[in-house]
Formats: sequence, structure tokens, C-alpha cells
Amino acid sequence: MAPHARHAQIGEAGLLARMLPQLPVDPRTEVGPGDDAAVLRLDSPRLVITTDSLVEGHDFLRTTTSARRVGRKAAVQNLADVAAMGARPQALVVAISAPSDEPPSTFEQITAGIAERAAAWGASVVGGDLGGAEQLSVTITAVGSLPGEEPPIRRDGARAGDLLVIGGPRLGRSAAGLAVALSGRAALAFDDPADGPARLDPELAATDAAVLLEWHDAPDPDLALGWGSGGAVSAQMDLSDGLVRDGARLAAASGLAVDLDPALLAADVETLRPLASVLGAEPLDWVLHGGEEHLMLAAAEAVPAGFRAVGRFTPGPEGLVTLGGAPVSGVGFDHFS
Amino acid sequence: MAPHARHAQIGEAGLLARMLPQLPVDPRTEVGPGDDAAVLRLDSPRLVITTDSLVEGHDFLRTTTSARRVGRKAAVQNLADVAAMGARPQALVVAISAPSDEPPSTFEQITAGIAERAAAWGASVVGGDLGGAEQLSVTITAVGSLPGEEPPIRRDGARAGDLLVIGGPRLGRSAAGLAVALSGRAALAFDDPADGPARLDPELAATDAAVLLEWHDAPDPDLALGWGSGGAVSAQMDLSDGLVRDGARLAAASGLAVDLDPALLAADVETLRPLASVLGAEPLDWVLHGGEEHLMLAAAEAVPAGFRAVGRFTPGPEGLVTLGGAPVSGVGFDHFS
Repeated sequence: MAPHARHAQIGEAGLLARMLPQLPVDPRTEVGPGDDAAVLRLDSPRLVITTDSLVEGHDFLRTTTSARRVGRKAAVQNLADVAAMGARPQALVVAISAPSDEPPSTFEQITAGIAERAAAWGASVVGGDLGGAEQLSVTITAVGSLPGEEPPIRRDGARAGDLLVIGGPRLGRSAAGLAVALSGRAALAFDDPADGPARLDPELAATDAAVLLEWHDAPDPDLALGWGSGGAVSAQMDLSDGLVRDGARLAAASGLAVDLDPALLAADVETLRPLASVLGAEPLDWVLHGGEEHLMLAAAEAVPAGFRAVGRFTPGPEGLVTLGGAPVSGVGFDHFS
Repeated sequence: MAPHARHAQIGEAGLLARMLPQLPVDPRTEVGPGDDAAVLRLDSPRLVITTDSLVEGHDFLRTTTSARRVGRKAAVQNLADVAAMGARPQALVVAISAPSDEPPSTFEQITAGIAERAAAWGASVVGGDLGGAEQLSVTITAVGSLPGEEPPIRRDGARAGDLLVIGGPRLGRSAAGLAVALSGRAALAFDDPADGPARLDPELAATDAAVLLEWHDAPDPDLALGWGSGGAVSAQMDLSDGLVRDGARLAAASGLAVDLDPALLAADVETLRPLASVLGAEPLDWVLHGGEEHLMLAAAEAVPAGFRAVGRFTPGPEGLVTLGGAPVSGVGFDHFS
């Protein structure tokens, strides 16, 4: 296969021949890719299911990410939604739409990125669809199951006095990486087989911009915290749209307010300050409003293993978010813009 | 809401407020839209899952279909894949990407079309995702389950001597409708609340062009034949890419050839001849190579109820399709072009 063969020339069968070998096989899969639908044996009939898309120009830029990272992110954002319900993900199906001159390597690398993250969390890719579009897009549906009669972890279970806890050591990384991507001072080849690091201008290269861009391109949260938190959390979601907006969602669903503790966020802010100075940005905004972290965000009486506290739910006005008791300015990340 | 309010102005919450009321609720759904993922109780843990996209400009034209029909077709093409495995569909998740100036009515009508066809076959819509794109696209994932240890109906079970049977009274309707759409002689308002019929030039209006265009825009196959055919069929798929191409797939998977019987297709051809004459097309091509019918296509010893015979599997060269023993010209419908 010539390195620049285009997908319309090799056809769906040719692409699948390059994509399918990258997919690990799960013994629970009775029928994998190639028939009208896949058939798999879930651990329980209580299906957990979610779907999410990434679209070129809206959710990623070809100039600052790679096809492999797009695959990773598309997988993770779906796996995180299953995990946030307290369920282990088991399988993914993948729909990719692409321009007719898209190189086959794009399909291959997206598949590799999806398969990599799926395998890391115990899931397999069991089916998909390839089609044409002017823009590259990847839509994944992830499924898992809840054992026995175990209740799903919903958003509405937080109690006044519960801590707001987050399943990761840092906040604001994805927003910082997005600022790097949009600065015009970083570049990554979309078909980069080595998957980075991105090329940066000298000033950015002296910061952790490359690592933050990679986290933005393909966040890597500890998803096992989602199904591992079990009885220890009273409400849970994944952090998609920023601490303030998603914190407000947990609070509103539970009929509560939430107060963020600035002292518990200070290290997050300070770590981002060198990069923020270079880019002329305010690191607190990244920490409070940055989305696409996909860390587990939960309510709990005591801090569960792997989580840390960032605030506390209070019986204040439903859905109100404050920072050390004071109003928070700014708005969360809106996926739909 | 002003009739021309655009979706970026009313936001995701505003759109969902218009879309969600259209979705019937299934008591088997524990958690519906609004949390990170949906939770539903399948009738069995043996999940059947498939995904498929429709993209503006590639899979439909805004000038000759309506948003409601796009929703119907997006649902049916996925429901048909589940049905073809011998399973009843139970639930759908829906990802819609659209330009920022897309009218809210588009989302509403697509949802209505999806919900209508889902409900007709016993399925519900349990979740989704809304995002931005330059082109409108709808990606659906459908799930169902197989009871007990019932085997899925795969493509590779046909036996020499089996009849090739199709679950519908006519073939070539979708291809004929596509020819109408591409003729430039038919038009339908994309937000047509009455859902047609399309406006046709007088010559086309004297044919069944409007009905064929509607079938192309939103085919309405009897999907219950898929899970009802049960032990009566040895292999099954849904007719997506044309009788010749899909017949070849069943034959190839089963290590057989298949001979189509021209006498059994004659009525299909003759019914399409008046329209074909107007459009200067060959109706036999539509019948042999027209895709997107989504009728059940199966192999069976005797004709199951609701099906009719169109050919017979033979021990000839693997995957060869003949017509009355003679070679077939032309190629099937390629979704990926």
C-alpha cells in the first residue's frame, strides 16, 4: 500500500483490513465486526450506554493533535461516561466519517488510539461504520453493565455536608492545553506516527505546554475510580464542562449548593501559572472552568481513595456554586458552540 | 420560540427541552437522557449492537428529503441491523452534529422521525449527544438482545439448495427514489411539517415518483421479519447495498454461489418501468443493484411467511452471483463513496 493512498481508492474493505487487526478480541464477544451487528455477552442484563462525537474544527484541530490522539480522546470521553455511572465499560462501536481524500493512515491511527484506551480499561471494539463527510468525525458508543441490582451512581444523590471530590491530582490541564493549541505556537503532524511531542516555540518549550497539549488532545483520567468508588460516593459524573458548571449540575440535581475551597485549588492554579504567564491567561479560569478533563467528580462523606476534596455541598440555593463563599465569575466550557 | 431561532442561541438545554418530550418512555429504562449514561434492563445479557451514520451531502440532500425522514431513515437502518441478527431492538442512542445556524425545528423533527420508527418496532431513545459540525449528521447506535442461548442469525449459514428470500414485496424502490432525488425534478422542504409529498414536475407527477422518493428518503421495511424468521432461515442480513452485492456477501460467507431468478424479479422491474422511462434509466439496474432497502435478505429451505424467493444458493464459485445462470453486470451501491 502506497503511503498516500486515499481511502476512496482502497475502499471500505481495504480500510477494514488495516483497522481490524488492531482490535483485541474479547472472549465475551460472540460476533465481532463484519456481520450486520455485533453480539456480546454482558456480565449482566443491566446495560449502561452512552454516545459522544468528536468533529474536526469543532472538537479538535488537525494542526495540533494527531489521529491517534483523536482516537484516544473519543474513546475516553465515552468510557468516562460509563465509568461515572459506576459501571465497567465492556465494548465500543465506532462510526467514522471522513473526506474522500483522507489517508488510510488516519483510519488506522484513530483505530489504534481507540483500541489502546479501550484495552486499558477492559473494553473492546466490536463494530463500526465508515462513511463520507467533508470533515473528519468520530462518534463512539460505549456500553458496560451494572452487576446484580447495584444502583447506578446518579447525579442527584449528594447530601448537604458531603465533600465535592475529584478523581485526579490536577485540574485545568485540558483548558491549558486548549490555550496552547489555539495560540498558534504549537504544531503536531496529524499522522505523526511517534505521537509527538508537539513542536513549540522556544518560550512555550520552556514550560510544560507539550504535556498539557497532550492532555487536552487525549486526556488520560483514572476511570477505574468511577466503578471503584462504589458505596463511597453518593453522586458522580465525569468532569466534561468545567468544575463550576459540572459542580453546579451535581448540586442542582441534588437540590443543593456547592462551595469550592480556594485553598484546595491553589496548587492546581500555581502549577499552571508559568504557562499562563507566557500566554497571558488567568490560570484560575482554567482550573474553575476548564472542561474535557473526564476525571470523576463526586460527592462523598469522606474522601475515597484516589480522590481529593475541592469543596463541600451546602443547603444553599439549588445549583449555586461559590468559591470560598463568594460568587464565581465566568462560565464553563460549552461543548455545543 | 421564534420559528427561525437558531440552535446556537437556544443552547443544548433549549434544544433538549424541545426534543425530549417527543421520546416515549420504556419501563425497562432505569436512567434515561440527562445523566452521564443511560441505564436499561435488557431482556437478556446477550447484547446485539450496531452503529450507522447519515451525513448531509453524502447520504441525503436537504433539497429532496425532510428532517423527519432523515430521522426515520437513521433509525431504520440501525434497527434493521439488529433485526437481521434475529434480535428485537430495544433502545437507541443518537448523536446529532449540526451547523450553528441549524434551526431548532431540525432537531425536533429528526427526533420525531427517530422516535416514530423506534416506537413502531418496540424500541426507545435513551440518550444522545449534540455537537457542532459544518454538515448535519446523525449517528445512531441501536441495541437489542438475544434471548437465552438462541444463536444469532449470521451471514454464513446458507446451504446449497437454499432459496434466497427477501422480506418485502418490491425491490429497487430506494434506487428509483434516489434517481428522482438526483433528477433535479423533485423538491421537498427540509422542515416540511406535513412531511411531503415532494413537489414534482408534471411528467414525474404522473408516475409513482413521490412514493419512491419517500421510500428512498425513509424506507419502511417489515423489520419484525428479522426476529420472526427464527428457525426458518439459515442466514440473514438486511439489504443495504443491493441484491447482487448483498447476495454475494451471503453466498461468500457461506462458501456458495447464488443464482437470481429473472422470472421472480420481473414484476419488480415492470412496476418501475414507467418512472425509469421518464428518467431514461434501466429499471433492472435498480432492482439488481439498488441499496438502502433495509428489507430482510435471507437463505431458507422454504419461503418463510412475509418473504418471497428471488433466487437459489448453489455450490458454484464462492460469492458468484448469476442471473438465470448468466453473469450479472454492474456493481452494488457503495455507501462509502
